[in-house]
Amino acid sequence: MKIGVRIMPRNEVLDTQGRAVEKTLGHHDFKVRCCRVGRYVEIDLDESDERRGLDQAQKMTEFVLHNPLIERYELEVIHEK
Amino acid sequence: MKIGVRIMPRNEVLDTQGRAVEKTLGHHDFKVRCCRVGRYVEIDLDESDERRGLDQAQKMTEFVLHNPLIERYELEVIHEK
Repeated sequence: MKIGVRIMPRNEVLDTQGRAVEKTLGHHDFKVRCCRVGRYVEIDLDESDERRGLDQAQKMTEFVLHNPLIERYELEVIHEK
Repeated sequence: MKIGVRIMPRNEVLDTQGRAVEKTLGHHDFKVRCCRVGRYVEIDLDESDERRGLDQAQKMTEFVLHNPLIERYELEVIHEK
């Protein structure tokens, strides 16, 4: 099964990439209130139980993917079409 | 309204970040079949109609966020809790 991990900069943290995108869009007449840029990681696991899959993905995320000081994350099961 | 853009490397493209995560997890006894690392962009728009919001976000994504040669993207409306 595939688990998706969305890792975003915390709201209190200055997001330089997001600011750059906001500026560029603004210069081209797109109207954006705010833009934040984070990461998305797809983890493919040898596991069929959703709860166990999410549990493993959470351990992996906290171990290597996520910096709790500056980021927040969310997990989701990816249901493929 | 907030729109989320998930931008992932195409399957045919070597994803060096994903490989690195796979290796690191493997070295620590996590079992991962495959891992791919992409970007996630949250765009906050001054728009309340979902269809128009998605349409604007699509234009922005194709204009500055997405490289069609090596990436695929998906849009979603973010419903905040």
